[in-house]
Amino acid sequence: MERLQNIDRLSLNQITTDRLNMREAVECCVRAEVPWIALWRHKVAEAGVAESRRLVKDAGLRVSSLCRGGYFPAATAAERAARMDDNRRAVEEAAELGTDVLVLVCGPAPDRDIDYARKTVAESIAELVPFARSHGVKLGIEPLHPMYAAERSVINTLAQANSLAERFNKQDVGVVIDAFHVWWDPELYAQIERARGRILGYHVSDWIVPVPDLLMGRGMMGDGVIELRRMRKAVEAAGYDGPIEVEIFNRQVWDMDGDEALALIKERYLEHV
Amino acid sequence: MERLQNIDRLSLNQITTDRLNMREAVECCVRAEVPWIALWRHKVAEAGVAESRRLVKDAGLRVSSLCRGGYFPAATAAERAARMDDNRRAVEEAAELGTDVLVLVCGPAPDRDIDYARKTVAESIAELVPFARSHGVKLGIEPLHPMYAAERSVINTLAQANSLAERFNKQDVGVVIDAFHVWWDPELYAQIERARGRILGYHVSDWIVPVPDLLMGRGMMGDGVIELRRMRKAVEAAGYDGPIEVEIFNRQVWDMDGDEALALIKERYLEHV
Repeated sequence: MERLQNIDRLSLNQITTDRLNMREAVECCVRAEVPWIALWRHKVAEAGVAESRRLVKDAGLRVSSLCRGGYFPAATAAERAARMDDNRRAVEEAAELGTDVLVLVCGPAPDRDIDYARKTVAESIAELVPFARSHGVKLGIEPLHPMYAAERSVINTLAQANSLAERFNKQDVGVVIDAFHVWWDPELYAQIERARGRILGYHVSDWIVPVPDLLMGRGMMGDGVIELRRMRKAVEAAGYDGPIEVEIFNRQVWDMDGDEALALIKERYLEHV
Repeated sequence: MERLQNIDRLSLNQITTDRLNMREAVECCVRAEVPWIALWRHKVAEAGVAESRRLVKDAGLRVSSLCRGGYFPAATAAERAARMDDNRRAVEEAAELGTDVLVLVCGPAPDRDIDYARKTVAESIAELVPFARSHGVKLGIEPLHPMYAAERSVINTLAQANSLAERFNKQDVGVVIDAFHVWWDPELYAQIERARGRILGYHVSDWIVPVPDLLMGRGMMGDGVIELRRMRKAVEAAGYDGPIEVEIFNRQVWDMDGDEALALIKERYLEHV
């Protein structure tokens, strides 16, 4: 299958270089000529939204997405309302930072009732849509690997994310496909095709064998078993030609020098994605 | 929802008390008046098949299943043939031990080609069915949690296991539903109903938050977030009234005294399953 010919679509998801602050991450992208960056809210908060925007803009970078909104289900009405407030702030930040994609990590159930939590997620997205639309921001539902169902998100397959997204207009709500979360799914390729017109992002890393850690065990592309190129081609065949984020939670990668990490990412991106 | 009124259907899956040998596990069941036991092949091998059979039979225990056949995909034809040989031995052992259920943990791909591995699993089961039938043994496809897709099984949802089982006669091939592996699945209850007439086992443990370990992190029933009773009722509504295996991979449980472990299992089984 054909390789990517250049890094025009490569985006550094900021969590991949979590030890770098906003300025350092931006400078690494510039030196590596990586044209896109995906921002995380805790990093944006550190630098401030206005300063983050200035740093990114002055560097000529484009922002592929802001991570993350979501975490909708809560044990009390007050807590749920607080989380909706926080999601509205996330929408405002996305707009101010110049991206039209807010990634949603929808959150776990506060108790054993996963069905109710899923219902809450759907209602919360419906509530958030008009606000997001008015800010020019789309909501990207990212299904998370089932191993995170109890701790991070009750949305765990692309089929489920598609069903949820299809309740809304394509202009408002889509899906974000992260290879690490969905690679195992027997329905993957049918669901990628089903997502046509709603794919708001494609994220890459790899699944290492054996898995070293539930959260921090993602691998550099090429170090694991995911058919990254096949999936990228399928996402493209379904109409997505936007940025491809490299999002790796891995302490070894975090411990690398930023410039070395970017160099390795570029090499692996061209070789494996 | 209604509780189980007694422990008539309770089965000790032998991995739950992995530090006990065959004789010790059998004796613990007898003292606890647990009527069923599920055997693992490495334990059977330690004691010998004939001696295992004698111990179980003399104690008046019934064997709910033998774990496990499977691990079909292999890198070479020779290795694949060797695994088929081993599966035939597993069928023979199941028959000799007096159970009609051989649990299949289908195995990972030897490379990145998960589709091919899945095809191999289907072909291997087709090859094994006549042999198993002639021994009065049913093959129970157990979907494993997607986090084990790269290391233990490429069969990762109940939908997938149902589709695979449906290629065969109900008398020959069914599914084994383990709460730990499937609890997160948005399609779970529809797929349990779909499995009607093919459910060959129901296994319980719990999903602890946060997950302490990928393999050894299963919890005692009641210590986690799984709706075990709801799932048991659904499995019953789909026609299954057979043994319920308690299968817990957890070092703390392994470190317990056998009698204390069985006492706790009985208590939690009646309270939570």
